[in-house]
Amino acid sequence: MIFKQLLEPVSSSYTYLLGCEQTGQAVLIDPVVNSIDRDLQVIHSLGLKIAYTVDTHIHADHITAALELKKRVESKIAAPAFDRLPCVDFGMEEGRPLQVGSITLTGLHTPGHTDGHFAYLVGERIFTGDALLIDGCGRTDFQNGNAEALYGSVTHKLFALPGETLVYPAHDYTGRHVSSIAQEKARNPRLGVGKSLEEFQRIMATLNLPYPKFIDYAVPGNKGCGICPTTLPDELEKYCRPMGESRQG
Amino acid sequence: MIFKQLLEPVSSSYTYLLGCEQTGQAVLIDPVVNSIDRDLQVIHSLGLKIAYTVDTHIHADHITAALELKKRVESKIAAPAFDRLPCVDFGMEEGRPLQVGSITLTGLHTPGHTDGHFAYLVGERIFTGDALLIDGCGRTDFQNGNAEALYGSVTHKLFALPGETLVYPAHDYTGRHVSSIAQEKARNPRLGVGKSLEEFQRIMATLNLPYPKFIDYAVPGNKGCGICPTTLPDELEKYCRPMGESRQG
Repeated sequence: MIFKQLLEPVSSSYTYLLGCEQTGQAVLIDPVVNSIDRDLQVIHSLGLKIAYTVDTHIHADHITAALELKKRVESKIAAPAFDRLPCVDFGMEEGRPLQVGSITLTGLHTPGHTDGHFAYLVGERIFTGDALLIDGCGRTDFQNGNAEALYGSVTHKLFALPGETLVYPAHDYTGRHVSSIAQEKARNPRLGVGKSLEEFQRIMATLNLPYPKFIDYAVPGNKGCGICPTTLPDELEKYCRPMGESRQG
Repeated sequence: MIFKQLLEPVSSSYTYLLGCEQTGQAVLIDPVVNSIDRDLQVIHSLGLKIAYTVDTHIHADHITAALELKKRVESKIAAPAFDRLPCVDFGMEEGRPLQVGSITLTGLHTPGHTDGHFAYLVGERIFTGDALLIDGCGRTDFQNGNAEALYGSVTHKLFALPGETLVYPAHDYTGRHVSSIAQEKARNPRLGVGKSLEEFQRIMATLNLPYPKFIDYAVPGNKGCGICPTTLPDELEKYCRPMGESRQG
């Protein structure tokens, strides 16, 4: 399998490219609308064609490129069936993997960051979305987030995978790229080292995080599989403007 | 390929088990003498048989299990040819990979921590020994260590690998298990972020590390492919005593 980890720097999001060497088909996990051109360039340079985009959840910090890629390269859209988005072509459910060439994406329902959140297992890799980050996890204070549910998703479902399973998160804010289930069990300060549900709930209840600055645009946009608002405040335009495009000149 | 990452806690060393599913043959990279019983238990539970042990270099902080495993399960010994150890069955050289079933270990001469140090590339994984650690590197102040050589090994040879290549180091002292070449290029505080040779040399020259407590036993023992001294000071016995074995009772 061809594998690339692509960073979208505005929201520090990772997009993952999986390519089938036999059929030339590719899957993009969590593509971001403002990095479409860069992603397509990478895909074309590898001689691949996107068959599916697959989102882990309805993101609150960026807009998915799913719809725009469907328009531009006719890729199909996969996302958790739980969210019942009418724009989705393939609803991911547990027990119903997505097959693209030789690539099998097995969905694991991992609610807590959002109620419909899915992680995807592909061979030795688990794409954990915002359920499990390196030394951290997604917040649980909006979009039907729920600390108790996230604790169960991570400690019962993700931590049950073999220790060597590679953890590829949807974000990292300090330049880390990869971890493993064993590593997160051993040292995740929120969920590892045998943290109890009560300890985790206390940590999540006292994070005092600011209201996400793009959420009021991102969530409705992502419920449409990636619709950028027609107007955005100047300081938020970077979330929809193609990466590298300048407003000068 | 079957893959297991095994921690030896006395010296915080990682031993890597690679298993060929077709032939049942296994390779152990950097096995440690005091964890032989645990490693053999893991290998047997997977239905594998060790064909080769492979060391990355002449270690100064633990004694390799190579010779003891050869005696117990008739595994062969591979190690860098550079060191010309008479106890070695297969001398690793660049351009002369070791093939074990479907597993190909490609050696990369990466001097600097020691002059004979090798890293091993196996598919998408690079076993970096003490040349490149997560957010760090091995010291360069003994065993013909050389900061300039290590800088070249890491920045010209290891950093030339694809960014997604998984970095599996010989040690981690804070519970981390895995990194990637892209991650180390982006944030290794000694060698990444475009550090110059001069900066690296200054860092390495001012580490003020203590003299390694086991080196005077480990190096001669490892030059014999893993001979434990007949007598050891009490506080060092744990380096040769089987892991988990108690002196009580």
